[in-house]
Amino acid sequence: MNDITIRPAVKADVPAIFRLVEELAEFERLADEVETSAERYLRDGFGEKPWFHCLVAEETDGSLIGMALYYFGYSTWKGRMLYLEDFMVQATHRRQGIGRALISGLVAEGLKHDVQLMKWEVIDWNEGAKAMYRSLGGDLDSGWINVKLYRDQLESWTPA
Amino acid sequence: MNDITIRPAVKADVPAIFRLVEELAEFERLADEVETSAERYLRDGFGEKPWFHCLVAEETDGSLIGMALYYFGYSTWKGRMLYLEDFMVQATHRRQGIGRALISGLVAEGLKHDVQLMKWEVIDWNEGAKAMYRSLGGDLDSGWINVKLYRDQLESWTPA
Repeated sequence: MNDITIRPAVKADVPAIFRLVEELAEFERLADEVETSAERYLRDGFGEKPWFHCLVAEETDGSLIGMALYYFGYSTWKGRMLYLEDFMVQATHRRQGIGRALISGLVAEGLKHDVQLMKWEVIDWNEGAKAMYRSLGGDLDSGWINVKLYRDQLESWTPA
Repeated sequence: MNDITIRPAVKADVPAIFRLVEELAEFERLADEVETSAERYLRDGFGEKPWFHCLVAEETDGSLIGMALYYFGYSTWKGRMLYLEDFMVQATHRRQGIGRALISGLVAEGLKHDVQLMKWEVIDWNEGAKAMYRSLGGDLDSGWINVKLYRDQLESWTPA
């Protein structure tokens, strides 16, 4: 963790953030699921009404080696929520406390906004990540199944 | 569906919306998980920066018999997202197309905001709901596990 800075992302970070997302998707063997682009992140995350926020971990030479992309949502049962959409530290920089520092930044951000809950997803075969999240005290809840409707399905939706 | 109106929720709907949330949580045998209140929904959903939005299904006598509570989020892989947090039609009013009408309203709202994805969760033993979502073309993806950190854990978080 020496010489690593955790800070909010700025526009100039977007290409590096997008590369980290791609790297993580490759690791998860789902790279072909990525349909976004750096241009879209720039439009959607840095306009007047940002659709997401992002913390980055930066080395002294300016390279980004980790990031945590999140947005605010709501749980009808718990209340205000910080949803961690994507969280990544480069393989070469793991086990140095950078992930923990990013999570610390998120926790601080969440408490600042009075959230009651922080939530994210982990792919079911990633035992290392699951063990880490359990060690944080995370509730790994497999009693719910995610359902998704994609754009083409939304566009072809037949109204009632 | 005769004489049912689908419209955005207003402040006066909040007590009825909260009752529907409680009713659904009871059906899911998780009523003691509900830690929110009508007061909190009022504060969080109807202030200057709403944490969520809601569509309601109203009968001609003014009673609410269904609702869909949602917020906007972001998928790093797909882009802009509408997240359906809670979705409920009262048991006495099912199989009349009200759920479908609420979903139609959500799809219209999502497309208006140029979302690429609509996402929600279903409890794993609710085969009726799962079958309905599959019939909509939904992708029921069980390869991911949800992780949650609650408020007491956030407050006792030890910084790196």
